[in-house]
Amino acid sequence: MTDSSTTEPGSHCRGVCVIMAGGRGTRFWPLSRIDRPKQLQALASGRSLLRDTFERLEPLVGADRILVVTSGSLAEATRADLPELPPANVITEPVGRNTAPCAVLGMGVAGQLAPGAPVALLPADHFIPDDDLFRAQLAEAFAFAEARETVVTFGVTPDRPETGYGYLEADAGEDQGFRPGKAFVEKPDAVTAEGYVRSGNHFWNSGIFVWNSTWFSAQADRFIPAVTALMAPVITAFGTNSFTAALETAYRDCPADSIDFAVMEKLPGFYLQPARFRWSDLGAWDAWGDLAPELSDANRGQGDLIAVDSTDNVVRVPDRLVALVGIHDMIIVDTPDALLVCRKSEAQRIKDVIARLESGDRKDLL
Amino acid sequence: MTDSSTTEPGSHCRGVCVIMAGGRGTRFWPLSRIDRPKQLQALASGRSLLRDTFERLEPLVGADRILVVTSGSLAEATRADLPELPPANVITEPVGRNTAPCAVLGMGVAGQLAPGAPVALLPADHFIPDDDLFRAQLAEAFAFAEARETVVTFGVTPDRPETGYGYLEADAGEDQGFRPGKAFVEKPDAVTAEGYVRSGNHFWNSGIFVWNSTWFSAQADRFIPAVTALMAPVITAFGTNSFTAALETAYRDCPADSIDFAVMEKLPGFYLQPARFRWSDLGAWDAWGDLAPELSDANRGQGDLIAVDSTDNVVRVPDRLVALVGIHDMIIVDTPDALLVCRKSEAQRIKDVIARLESGDRKDLL
Repeated sequence: MTDSSTTEPGSHCRGVCVIMAGGRGTRFWPLSRIDRPKQLQALASGRSLLRDTFERLEPLVGADRILVVTSGSLAEATRADLPELPPANVITEPVGRNTAPCAVLGMGVAGQLAPGAPVALLPADHFIPDDDLFRAQLAEAFAFAEARETVVTFGVTPDRPETGYGYLEADAGEDQGFRPGKAFVEKPDAVTAEGYVRSGNHFWNSGIFVWNSTWFSAQADRFIPAVTALMAPVITAFGTNSFTAALETAYRDCPADSIDFAVMEKLPGFYLQPARFRWSDLGAWDAWGDLAPELSDANRGQGDLIAVDSTDNVVRVPDRLVALVGIHDMIIVDTPDALLVCRKSEAQRIKDVIARLESGDRKDLL
Repeated sequence: MTDSSTTEPGSHCRGVCVIMAGGRGTRFWPLSRIDRPKQLQALASGRSLLRDTFERLEPLVGADRILVVTSGSLAEATRADLPELPPANVITEPVGRNTAPCAVLGMGVAGQLAPGAPVALLPADHFIPDDDLFRAQLAEAFAFAEARETVVTFGVTPDRPETGYGYLEADAGEDQGFRPGKAFVEKPDAVTAEGYVRSGNHFWNSGIFVWNSTWFSAQADRFIPAVTALMAPVITAFGTNSFTAALETAYRDCPADSIDFAVMEKLPGFYLQPARFRWSDLGAWDAWGDLAPELSDANRGQGDLIAVDSTDNVVRVPDRLVALVGIHDMIIVDTPDALLVCRKSEAQRIKDVIARLESGDRKDLL
């Protein structure tokens, strides 16, 4: 481990970033696989989404102040993808226990690295092309959260009645551009979502949270004391030889829980920072297609395409020509050992393919 | 060249078979390519359609009495596919001139091989799974045609109102199971085709013709004298060193014409033999799918398929897993350098893909 003293004073802001990078990304099968899931795939640039995220953060806080929490099986690939990161800053969960243990551990280690500093908790696998705007707003959030006992969440102004996202509802008023939060809102139905687009008070929940790590720990102690009790010795052991053993012991007994449900939504209040940057959670292939270059006739994606009476398809066929005839609103994804053809409106049902592979002794393709 | 005296007396019947094997098979792109077109692909068995056709005929007439007419560029692949065939029996057209010159040349050479024998003219690329039944009926047709100045065509009893085939109309009466033909009928519209299915007098035109080669030559002299005049010296040169040069000279000047339009449909009469064997012209991928094994959920073809809410597709994906989600009535064909996804009802429009490849400097994929 290097520590913050190795970065030049004044070149970075005081925050720490914890990137959650342990997902499986099954909705991006057949590209996303267990040993190289969505966050390790190049879905927004020529680099992996994780590396995009790292490069977005590094100029603001420095590599030493970035922690990546992932699963043990991805440790090697993750470290190889981020060679600038101190190896110990890649924290590997021995088993998945949803996001609450991951957040408690990450925030706790962040508090060790920079006591009292503001900390951001971020997903590794989102699409945020406007890096400068993002960093500027993250710096604002760090400054805002450091001085207050609260959490700041980034809210994205909806441009369509999306029913696949959770929403944040803002209360009236604002404080230095931050709006007091009123409620976390579950995924709405289509009519409700139409109302949210018009309201001006509803935002997509980006899943990016910023807070003071000391205050977070107090909240976690209150809402998930079993988890914080198990993680405390692990956090203390960070940077020592006993870290891995402590991690194994703690995770073995740790309950699985979601940080959103177990902590966030129980907090007495929150602030919402309306994002000025573009954002997508890249939830599935259709979302990827919305952001990919147009190939021809409103067909989007990547590949050498001949489209005959074929429009509005999402194509990712990197290594061969693909010809479409009379095909509309489809997703076509080609990999060396598996090919997917999926109706866009059923992109979520790729999970049924995963289930068949799991039950059908085809784990080599997961 | 070997001649008929090398076959054991009595082991084979007296007929000669001329297989027309020069097609491009563009409707089977991306599998069918210029250097390995439909007839050289394994579309009905583990062997090529040409080889299936050869093996269907060989027990009846012997390899020496089978001639294959193809294009010059396919000579090597064709001979490699049929090593039992005397190499000279693969006749290669230097340029394509439609079917009339091919038929005149093939029938003429057949007459050289076995003067006065009945000759069958057959496409190389049809699906006829019932080899024994086929041979029995072909032997009957040989015997019938040898003694008469007429042509026998195989007619297939329609089991659906197919609008993609030409039909044969039979007159009343019959002679040893052969029905006198009334007319060659063009591809009908759907309503007319419904009537044909009910009539009992309409049959699909299989494109398989049997006649006495001497009589055929007289008819060709009458209807396409320019072609027969050009081909006469080529036929005479068969089996000599000057054959290839004669072929080049004749084809350079030969007009393109269809044997169906230029000769068949002008004949004073014909006989129709109702086929007892199953038959398909395998016109395009949808026809192939109708005959391919069921994989699951009325999805047919070849491949390792996972179908989620997906039915009635035609799949040929030999080398990787294919997962379909919400996909119906589609054709999916995968090859190492090109992938096709095509609505079944638009299978004929693959020709538009071919046109784009031809005009777009992608001739490597033709």
